[in-house]
Amino acid sequence: MVCVSNPERRYVISFGCPDRTGIIARISGFLAEHGGWIVEAAYHTDPDTGWFFTRQVVRADSLPFDATELRARFAEVAKSLSAESSWQVSDSGERRRAVILVSKAGHCLYDLLGRVASGELDVDVAAVIGNHTSLGDITRAHGIPFHHVPFPSGNAEAKSAAFAEVRKLVDEHDPHAVVLARFMQVLPADLCEAWAGRALNIHHSFLPSFVGARPYHQAHARGVKLIGATCHYVTADLDAGPIVDQDVIRVDHGDSVEDMVRKGRDIEKVTLARGLRWHLEGRVLVHGNRTVVF
Amino acid sequence: MVCVSNPERRYVISFGCPDRTGIIARISGFLAEHGGWIVEAAYHTDPDTGWFFTRQVVRADSLPFDATELRARFAEVAKSLSAESSWQVSDSGERRRAVILVSKAGHCLYDLLGRVASGELDVDVAAVIGNHTSLGDITRAHGIPFHHVPFPSGNAEAKSAAFAEVRKLVDEHDPHAVVLARFMQVLPADLCEAWAGRALNIHHSFLPSFVGARPYHQAHARGVKLIGATCHYVTADLDAGPIVDQDVIRVDHGDSVEDMVRKGRDIEKVTLARGLRWHLEGRVLVHGNRTVVF
Amino acid sequence: MVCVSNPERRYVISFGCPDRTGIIARISGFLAEHGGWIVEAAYHTDPDTGWFFTRQVVRADSLPFDATELRARFAEVAKSLSAESSWQVSDSGERRRAVILVSKAGHCLYDLLGRVASGELDVDVAAVIGNHTSLGDITRAHGIPFHHVPFPSGNAEAKSAAFAEVRKLVDEHDPHAVVLARFMQVLPADLCEAWAGRALNIHHSFLPSFVGARPYHQAHARGVKLIGATCHYVTADLDAGPIVDQDVIRVDHGDSVEDMVRKGRDIEKVTLARGLRWHLEGRVLVHGNRTVVF
Amino acid sequence: MVCVSNPERRYVISFGCPDRTGIIARISGFLAEHGGWIVEAAYHTDPDTGWFFTRQVVRADSLPFDATELRARFAEVAKSLSAESSWQVSDSGERRRAVILVSKAGHCLYDLLGRVASGELDVDVAAVIGNHTSLGDITRAHGIPFHHVPFPSGNAEAKSAAFAEVRKLVDEHDPHAVVLARFMQVLPADLCEAWAGRALNIHHSFLPSFVGARPYHQAHARGVKLIGATCHYVTADLDAGPIVDQDVIRVDHGDSVEDMVRKGRDIEKVTLARGLRWHLEGRVLVHGNRTVVF
Repeated sequence: MVCVSNPERRYVISFGCPDRTGIIARISGFLAEHGGWIVEAAYHTDPDTGWFFTRQVVRADSLPFDATELRARFAEVAKSLSAESSWQVSDSGERRRAVILVSKAGHCLYDLLGRVASGELDVDVAAVIGNHTSLGDITRAHGIPFHHVPFPSGNAEAKSAAFAEVRKLVDEHDPHAVVLARFMQVLPADLCEAWAGRALNIHHSFLPSFVGARPYHQAHARGVKLIGATCHYVTADLDAGPIVDQDVIRVDHGDSVEDMVRKGRDIEKVTLARGLRWHLEGRVLVHGNRTVVF
Repeated sequence: MVCVSNPERRYVISFGCPDRTGIIARISGFLAEHGGWIVEAAYHTDPDTGWFFTRQVVRADSLPFDATELRARFAEVAKSLSAESSWQVSDSGERRRAVILVSKAGHCLYDLLGRVASGELDVDVAAVIGNHTSLGDITRAHGIPFHHVPFPSGNAEAKSAAFAEVRKLVDEHDPHAVVLARFMQVLPADLCEAWAGRALNIHHSFLPSFVGARPYHQAHARGVKLIGATCHYVTADLDAGPIVDQDVIRVDHGDSVEDMVRKGRDIEKVTLARGLRWHLEGRVLVHGNRTVVF
Repeated sequence: MVCVSNPERRYVISFGCPDRTGIIARISGFLAEHGGWIVEAAYHTDPDTGWFFTRQVVRADSLPFDATELRARFAEVAKSLSAESSWQVSDSGERRRAVILVSKAGHCLYDLLGRVASGELDVDVAAVIGNHTSLGDITRAHGIPFHHVPFPSGNAEAKSAAFAEVRKLVDEHDPHAVVLARFMQVLPADLCEAWAGRALNIHHSFLPSFVGARPYHQAHARGVKLIGATCHYVTADLDAGPIVDQDVIRVDHGDSVEDMVRKGRDIEKVTLARGLRWHLEGRVLVHGNRTVVF
Repeated sequence: MVCVSNPERRYVISFGCPDRTGIIARISGFLAEHGGWIVEAAYHTDPDTGWFFTRQVVRADSLPFDATELRARFAEVAKSLSAESSWQVSDSGERRRAVILVSKAGHCLYDLLGRVASGELDVDVAAVIGNHTSLGDITRAHGIPFHHVPFPSGNAEAKSAAFAEVRKLVDEHDPHAVVLARFMQVLPADLCEAWAGRALNIHHSFLPSFVGARPYHQAHARGVKLIGATCHYVTADLDAGPIVDQDVIRVDHGDSVEDMVRKGRDIEKVTLARGLRWHLEGRVLVHGNRTVVF
């Protein structure tokens, strides 16, 4: 077995199913039978719901068949474990694609583009879509198409048309991740549904505190001593989707709202990047409104 | 000037007043005039309200008069700065007293008693009051009186009588701090008022998230990735008083509610002890529902 | 499967062995064959040395035999995996014993005793041994025997006799853990060997910075902005044994050495308690001079 | 007084001098005499050396003279306090300039350029100098000149010529900060001297642990549980200059050296950016080999 940072091709198997004895033996037996070399294995049981979760990473060259065949054979295993609806087999040899939605604030976009450019975040950014034009130049400097879709305020019909345009631009790339990098627009229910489990948002507070608009102003008014950031899957309930990661940073009475905004950026950037990385690596399994992060 | 950990006698002057030019010159001029040697000085201005705050620590032996005379003279300075209502001069030579209220959970009490016994927390614990008897032995082992005041559930009249008994036991010591060390009973409004600015509570969540009962259960249900603890002054609004300090600790999907309870204890203990220490050293100035912590 | 905080009886199996395909299948197959219900499973491969590690927690009532029989049967599995020398099967139904060594500083002892008394740390403290008498009272207040073994400074022979006395007092309890809770004496090589893998020390720095005496003085002189604490297994090389856990806390220019000592206590306490807990739960596997902490 | 994030023009006064009574009164008296409105004031005394430090921020429009006149008048105050050699008065109306030195690793450069572009870091990046060409494109995309100065390995003379070229390119901008953003070359003594107090380095370890080359490899070999980053002023002693800021991030046995490199980047970026910001705002006063950071 070799470490996960080794660039060799791997298959990642993950699923959730009702817990019972013998699940680990079933999966590891299936893999051992074909010579599968497991390089990472993680398990979790949720005692409240009696549900079992796992993620296994296997060296591709240790198996005598390709991803398609692995999927076909693993479907049998999944069925025998009542995991039909949740199992996934992904192939590290297939490139991942992301589309990033932005507004005016550029710190998360600059950060993500820098990570991609320096090879840290292994994803193709297919496009960046902004409701302002200000982040077009940096996007194009990275060789990525930028689409400007204006969102006229206060006009429901025009907003609806703008979201339809965004959806079209996103869906033509069929991305593995739709990243709301401080997009500042509430996704309509149909987009939440269409992108369920793929749309990641960064909210600039330690949820569930300070849902909605101007969370740093809310935090300042409440006099908290730490501010936070939350990366979560987008659902139809505002800022209430399954949480992938959170972080905090210390503030004190000397910090104005503007200071909080500045300090908060550092945790927004890192929390979003970490959440996106985990999502792309298939580490995040959603279970009800919670996540298992392997 | 010497460092604050030096055990020499000091006077601590603090106040808040409307901001304007020349305040620092006024105070430092007053002290310099009498040879006052400032060993710590901190300032803060709240731009939202235009209010100025300061805390000054002066070596007692550098001044030609005692605390009583200092108070008499400083009253003039405070008046000239419109700080009549908020100024305080405390004397490190006068011992501080605390009364601790507990229920069954002992971790905060064990921690506070250990800190006092090892000389880290400079306060006389005048009494511990519990609505159960289980923490009596450890309290008495530290040579501190323990009073058992049972709180019958569901009986408003008996509860009211119990609180009256608690109040009597507390007030006879006229303590500088009333510490709710996981007391688990909501103080009635009259006690909140009587102990305003002196009653410190530790709430086992990162407020304003998870107000009220069973915050770790709430945190687990929401699937947060960090849990917190908040030390705050008690006011009539449940868990909504001015925050003195907060801390967090990382959790993941593998942590049950019981694991969260256990991990949370470590931050509850340290957050309460830190808040109490700052309160006793006169570092905490309350301004509306926020605190300045020098 | 149920969560680990459930008090039901469990067997904990752990070992390290050369990595190869099929190990997980071998163990999980063995357990599944007998109906073993795995409640926690963790794996790790060290790519540098090609070594595989695992820890499995099984519900005792799910197996048709007791710990003795499990050990007999598992020995075969271990042998087939070349894990003869490292495998362990522990039984949560067997009480764990610890002996604590202290000097004058009481904060770690107070903390450990408080955790044991409140049921958080599941261990019997068989004895506390101090080279000063000052911590005798609190130890006895917890109903634990305290032994005073003076260490005359500068007298090698007397020191050697003192260590022999300490060894006798410790070994008669055959403890699972010997906890050096700020003991301040360097263990001689023979004791390091006798207690190898069982003696846990808390060093008051972020190792490998500031080895040896007066680490907070060293940290202050270097002007660091964070101070640390390190829980490690004791070996014959001073402060160089395998690290179990570390933590840090922020300091600034205003912190004197005394302030660092005070702030550092909070991380010493929690780091030692966490390391001890993991050690007692069989979560720590030593591999060369590093640890795997499951 | 207004908060520091207000963009109004300010003068920043800072100095260190021997401690005595009346220093604060002297400065604040001088300022009050001319109507100076202090918006931030910080003090520190080092008890070991008996040295006093302060930083005062004054609204420019509150004084009846300009920065030149303020400097002339303040020179008298500084002289009377024996602070002739250390005092500084800076003017927020004068733009700050930085030159950034890089090698191949781009994460710190991407981060700094993103912060400058989004208005978070208030400095003109006059030039970026790299000993490889790989970061030229991103630099030019931000409209900043990039200079390639190759450093032939193993050739002392050529290296010396390269450093002379770097020096010429840097010095023509007379920058307030020379930022070694993972430059990977050890500055010769003459450059350390020429840029004393202006050259900031980010070292990828928690100094003083793991000085010199490949600190993540050293950290991995030692089995530490936290890795760190240190921003410090460059001096002739390798990685031993005054520390401005440090941070750490948790790692475990599962993290390979490559994982540590990746995780470490997040703290390198934020620690360097924070240190640079504080340096540019005149918040960092060097005292021997330590810093006071107001």
